[in-house]
Amino acid sequence: MNQVNLKQLAQELGLAVSTVSRALRDSHEISQETKDRVQALATKLGFQPNPYASSLRRNKSKTIAAIVPEIENNFFSQAINGVELVAKQKGYHVLIYLTHEDFHHEQEILQLLRNGRVDGLMISVSNTTTGTEHLEACRKAGLPIVSFDRVLDEIDVPKVTTDDTEVSFRAVEHLIKKGCTKVAFLSMSDNLSISKRRQSGYKKALDKYLPDGWEQVVQCSPDDAHNRQLIAGLLEQADPPDGIFAAVEKFAINTYQVCQELNIHIPGKLKVIGFSNLSATALFHPPLSTIVQPAYEIGREAATILFKLIENKKLLPTENKIVLPSQLILRKSTAKSSL
Amino acid sequence: MNQVNLKQLAQELGLAVSTVSRALRDSHEISQETKDRVQALATKLGFQPNPYASSLRRNKSKTIAAIVPEIENNFFSQAINGVELVAKQKGYHVLIYLTHEDFHHEQEILQLLRNGRVDGLMISVSNTTTGTEHLEACRKAGLPIVSFDRVLDEIDVPKVTTDDTEVSFRAVEHLIKKGCTKVAFLSMSDNLSISKRRQSGYKKALDKYLPDGWEQVVQCSPDDAHNRQLIAGLLEQADPPDGIFAAVEKFAINTYQVCQELNIHIPGKLKVIGFSNLSATALFHPPLSTIVQPAYEIGREAATILFKLIENKKLLPTENKIVLPSQLILRKSTAKSSL
Repeated sequence: MNQVNLKQLAQELGLAVSTVSRALRDSHEISQETKDRVQALATKLGFQPNPYASSLRRNKSKTIAAIVPEIENNFFSQAINGVELVAKQKGYHVLIYLTHEDFHHEQEILQLLRNGRVDGLMISVSNTTTGTEHLEACRKAGLPIVSFDRVLDEIDVPKVTTDDTEVSFRAVEHLIKKGCTKVAFLSMSDNLSISKRRQSGYKKALDKYLPDGWEQVVQCSPDDAHNRQLIAGLLEQADPPDGIFAAVEKFAINTYQVCQELNIHIPGKLKVIGFSNLSATALFHPPLSTIVQPAYEIGREAATILFKLIENKKLLPTENKIVLPSQLILRKSTAKSSL
Repeated sequence: MNQVNLKQLAQELGLAVSTVSRALRDSHEISQETKDRVQALATKLGFQPNPYASSLRRNKSKTIAAIVPEIENNFFSQAINGVELVAKQKGYHVLIYLTHEDFHHEQEILQLLRNGRVDGLMISVSNTTTGTEHLEACRKAGLPIVSFDRVLDEIDVPKVTTDDTEVSFRAVEHLIKKGCTKVAFLSMSDNLSISKRRQSGYKKALDKYLPDGWEQVVQCSPDDAHNRQLIAGLLEQADPPDGIFAAVEKFAINTYQVCQELNIHIPGKLKVIGFSNLSATALFHPPLSTIVQPAYEIGREAATILFKLIENKKLLPTENKIVLPSQLILRKSTAKSSL
């Protein structure tokens, strides 16, 4: 016997499918009389509710969310392009939400998303995020989550990152091999594990090559003017650095701006290397040595994992923590002194 | 006498507010018996439906959409920041959708948005968009729309743009005054009125200063590699230009890359000016002269107008077409020859 479905029940009874569905769920919006009629026919025809129906109902938005701190940074815009490629193949739309590095705003967005607006979300947290409750609440509500780039170690969701510690170590090692003895680190936020990993790569290189030597960490912010002040202070101090390792594209740009203003020669007086996904850094004067993250691939992998979760597929153990290698692109900003 | 509202009706009848509301709208989901009970009490207590209720119901998503072609271009990311500022003040969330310059994808997004997911939308169309039906359909469905930057002249919605023709004229005039006699224009798309306006500024400057002289328009694309090929061809032809005016940031960057590769000196051999909102162009070698659009302000104005529409406020006649001036930032890429 063919299985009876909701539509057939509705046709037989002369009711809307939604009414039959509500009646079977004992909705308060449906009269008892109607409920009785529906239930009687359902029993008579042997109607079995589809066990997948409710999960299909949950996954009907055909939309996923990508939550990122900002999009002026090329890393995030490239990562989103990777996400969009996968979503397009799956026939999904991507909603992009910006937190503007504001934890409270991030909490609001996640609260909004708990109500079935999307089938899953990918997030790179803000640098002011200090807790995981907002993510836990989404996870408990059954919303699949994948964390990428700026991940929170405390929460048990799949994570896609790059090899921050290793590539930071290599960047600082490179500065030292080019003659730097006083390398400063421009850091973004103490809250983020990604910052800690980049700083730990910096520390490891110093410990290996310059133990008990010069060391300085400057806590930068999203505010360019404030960063330029901090960097100018750093470069004008009595014992200034001869090398800078910038944790974020923005800070490397801020450093160049300050050097232009103070007439500090790069790489003669100061060598600079920084994380950046801006291809135009090759056009800088001098061209900037960069750590290029596999931004597009990180977005693509994060989305691929997310769709596995949405489709209730099992993840391989290796898929819970994916680490994609970054690339060191060496240019003139870290060349041996040309002064 | 105090006005009776839905909640009081519902309490009196022992029903949910949503049930009462549906019953009054003669919904097929509610039994006739319930409808009769609700109607009887409504008449008895002199219930008057709130004329604003349905518009409030429409405006309950507390979300607006910003649809843009891409976010790797700093113009759009800055415009979105302007949108987000206004939305935040209004307690609204912003959904960002990317069309990736794909008309079909843009149509899909607008179809999705017709179903009440957002209270209004702002759009800067893709460069492959050739019709307005998708926008007309949203407008007819009662969804407020504001068009910004890349606007379609054919559709009657408020538009926020910059003075493309005038500032393009001034940029080309500047190249000519610095000694250029053969200025090429790198254009983005024949479909867009914004491209036509920028090209018309270019033409006007040539007509005024170099009538019947050298003229060349190169149709570029979103594909960097393809653009670099086109630009290399342009610069290696028998009678190459001595000045380039780039309609989009990307094309100015492509020009620099080609000049670096072919060892063409800027500004000695070729002067370059382009639309760009990337502050790092000041760090280029040589620093790039740019037309800086008021991106943040365009986003802010577009969102302000959109909220007026959402809140059913009357627009001033001047608010239907807002034109914000761009700024010419002159740097070394257009300086008098230093060779």
